This record gives sequence, C-alpha cells and structure tokens, in this order.
Amino acid sequence: MPVLGVFDSGFGGLTVLRALLPLVPNAHYVYLGDTARLPYGAKSQGTIARYAVEAARFLEARSADMLVIACNTATALALEDIRAAVQIPVVGVIDPGATAAHDVIRAAGISIEATHPEVLVLATAATVQSHAYLAACAQLGLKATEVACPLLVPLVEEGWTDHPVTREVIRIYLSDALTRCTPRAVVLGCTHYPLIAHEIEAALRELGCDAVVVDAARATAEATSHALGAHGPASPLAPATFECFATDSVEKFQRLGTHFLGRTMPPVTLLDLGG
Amino acid sequence: MPVLGVFDSGFGGLTVLRALLPLVPNAHYVYLGDTARLPYGAKSQGTIARYAVEAARFLEARSADMLVIACNTATALALEDIRAAVQIPVVGVIDPGATAAHDVIRAAGISIEATHPEVLVLATAATVQSHAYLAACAQLGLKATEVACPLLVPLVEEGWTDHPVTREVIRIYLSDALTRCTPRAVVLGCTHYPLIAHEIEAALRELGCDAVVVDAARATAEATSHALGAHGPASPLAPATFECFATDSVEKFQRLGTHFLGRTMPPVTLLDLGG
Repeated sequence: MPVLGVFDSGFGGLTVLRALLPLVPNAHYVYLGDTARLPYGAKSQGTIARYAVEAARFLEARSADMLVIACNTATALALEDIRAAVQIPVVGVIDPGATAAHDVIRAAGISIEATHPEVLVLATAATVQSHAYLAACAQLGLKATEVACPLLVPLVEEGWTDHPVTREVIRIYLSDALTRCTPRAVVLGCTHYPLIAHEIEAALRELGCDAVVVDAARATAEATSHALGAHGPASPLAPATFECFATDSVEKFQRLGTHFLGRTMPPVTLLDLGG
Repeated sequence: MPVLGVFDSGFGGLTVLRALLPLVPNAHYVYLGDTARLPYGAKSQGTIARYAVEAARFLEARSADMLVIACNTATALALEDIRAAVQIPVVGVIDPGATAAHDVIRAAGISIEATHPEVLVLATAATVQSHAYLAACAQLGLKATEVACPLLVPLVEEGWTDHPVTREVIRIYLSDALTRCTPRAVVLGCTHYPLIAHEIEAALRELGCDAVVVDAARATAEATSHALGAHGPASPLAPATFECFATDSVEKFQRLGTHFLGRTMPPVTLLDLGG
C-alpha cells in the first residue's frame, strides 16, 4: 500500500486529502499542517522554501512514496526547492488546477490555440502576488486574471460557509472581477474555497457568467492518482489509513479539520519542526 | 526627549502609536511589527513569550526608555516574561483597557462595589481564550463577557472600514453578544478595532444598548503618558520623530500602516529577528 505525504501550511490541504480518498482509497496518508508558522502568505520566498523543505523532509522520513504539496503558496514559491530536497515524486496544486481549466475549456469545443480563452483565478493575496497561475495558464495558451479574495479564508474558518454575508462578499469580489475579464473557467486557487464552491458557482450564474468552476484541490487529487497509477496497480481491498501532524493549534485543527475533511479527523499529533 | 519603544505582532499597534502622538508629541518612537511571525494568536504561550522577549530586547537595545506592548495577545501571554527580561518600564494594553471601562462606569455614577456591572470585551479568538480581560476586569469589580470577532481584523485589513458587509458582521456579532450580557461598557480589545469604532457604536445604539465604547488603544496611550509624566517634564518644542521596523512584508506594512497611523508612514526597515 503506497504512503502519501500531504503537506499544507494549515488544515486547508485537508480538502485535497478529501478529494484524494475516493480516487486513491488504498493508501496510508501522512498529513502535516505547519500551523505554527502559518500563514505562509506574508513571508519571504526564502523563509517559505526553508519551512516547506523541512516539512517535505519530515514526510519523506515517514516513508512517503509521493508528496502532495496541498498549499498554493508553498507550491507557488517552493516547489522547485522541495523537488531538489527530496528523492520522491512531488505533486503541487497549481499545474493541476491550470491543466483542469485547459481541459474543461477544450471539452466545451473551444479552440485554445485560436482564441486564447480567459480564465479567472480566485486565490489568496500571496498566491496572486506570485503570479504562479498566470504563468501556468500562459504555458497552456490560457489568459489568466488572478483576483485576491482575502476575506474568503476567514469566512470559511468562521464556519460561515452557507451564510448571507459570505454570499454577499463573493458577489462583491466576482462582480468586480467580471469587469476585468470574461472567463470560460474559474479556478478555485485556494484549498479553503471548495467549501464554498456552490456559493461561488451560484454567484457566477446570478452575474450572468456561465464559466465552469474548476476545483484545484480535486484536480490535484486526480493528478496524484494518475502519477501513482504509473507506480503500480492498486489493491482495492485495503482501506485508507491516516496519520495527522500539526506544528501548533492541535485543538483548532481537530475542530475545523472534520469540516474540511468531510469525515471524522484522526487524532492530531503535535510536532516541533523548530523555529 | 524620551525614546518610546512600541511593539506589536503586526501593524495594528500603530493605532496605539496614533493615540500616543497627541498625548506625547515630544518623543522619539521606535515601532517594531513582528510581521514575519504573526499572527501570534495561533501559537503556544512559550513561543509567543520567546518572540515578544526578542522584540522587547531589540527595542531596549535601541535606547527605549519605556516599552509599550501594543498587542493584546503578547500582553495577555507574555507581559510578565517581557518585564523580567528588560530593565525599562513596560506598559501593556489590557490593564489600561479594563481600567478605562471601570472609570467610565464610575463616571456615570454607578456603584461598582454594589452592582458589579457588566463589560463586553470584543477581541480576537486568542485574546478571548487567554481570559486576560476577564481577570483584569474581575480585579476591578467588573464582570466581563469576552466575545471573539475573528472576521473584524480581515475586514479592516481589506480596507472595508466603512462598508455594509462590515456593518452587517458587527451587527451579527453584537446581537449575539447582547443575548449573553447587558454591558455598561464595551471594550475594543484589539488594536484593529479603533478603525471601526464608529460602526461598533452605531450598531450598539441600533440594538438598543447605550454602553460606552472604550478604546483600549487610546487607554494605553493615556496610561503611557501618565507613566512618562512621572519620569520628568516634557519639552513641548520638539516634534515627534519615528523609526519603524518590520520583520517581513514591508510593502504591506507601508501600504496599510498609513491607514492605521492616520498620517504618512515613515520608511519601514526590514529586520531579521531569526526563526
């Protein structure tokens, strides 16, 4: 049974794990949330790379066969450093999200080469500032507009996932974004956003936009499943098992984690990565 | 001219500095925002104390005559550690906030000893969990109800200080809080909240509550001014001068700082405190 290491700065990456479970049920998962040092968004590239490499080495030492960087900021700013630091394959969230946007647009019969269709990426301020989605989309012939939605993470963490205030904030962000682009696909470029995907889709329709909503967490799970498939056949009889580590705030992790994972959280072990 | 060190985990403490300037104009201010390691709220007491002591020693080494801990979390969890680590007087934000609530209630002619009046404290989740305001109020004969308002900091940082969404979020928090207490005073127990004091006061009135709003940032500035007064006469001819340090995110600091300080920010110098 393969061992999959999943890393995020917090518990948002649990939405990637949630998407992985039905696709790769026969695995042992080791999840690490670096909660003591979040948010990564406000930190410099060097600091983020150092933190992410420490986390990746920890997961490799826990016998991970593959590493999923379920964190947009760490993927945007440290993917190459992580790949250089470990011996196992590493999957990030950004290329799968951009590729999924490309695929849904092509599936709608639109010629990407002829029209360079527009994609709207909703993300945190740090991910937007990195322009990692812009670069990944450009490589696929897509024109991305990246929009920071700083209030959506705190609203999800407050538990207001089905709440009139959250719907109003989404409407404000999207109505502004739609004055700047006419997207064929909207990428949820933050691991918290799958919990409000339905509200984001409803707001797009109300604003007269028929873009397909692409969940980068789900796309990452699919990319991981494909990459694992190349490593040998699955054994469908074995159920998934879990270990979960956090560097601080174990109580909050345990409480909010169930909401993100969509099932009861395993016990969360406090881990000291230093500094 | 006295040198005043002002410390916060971010730029929120600039509202304390803003309140200090008219009270203590003839000082040199050295502000330190430990932005690389914020938010302190999710971290353990030991970690917060270590960070805060490093910051306090830095400000003492910059010749500060007095230290203002303009951070509710650091005051709640590290004030005694900081006092033990430096040789200069240290003022925190929590005792001044509680004392100001006591004073406005007494000024309204209410007998505190006879009635143990209620105080509502609005703060971040970390400050509420510390129960530092509960303890400080209890020592003064006041019964505090502490309510976490996690969305208010991100709303202020988004710049939505005069916005219908912020007014609605405040109304939701306050209408819930007022089912739990009948306060005579409402303490703004977070350095971001002075920027929405007017909206908080308006919401209280709409909800039929006539409590006095107490700004802990302003109360801290007054306590600092009193403490400095005991150290010698002021020279009213010298204008205030500034130095400003941040451990990361200098750009965001500079951009939002002007909003919090209420005047143009001085240049912000990047500082490495390690870890």
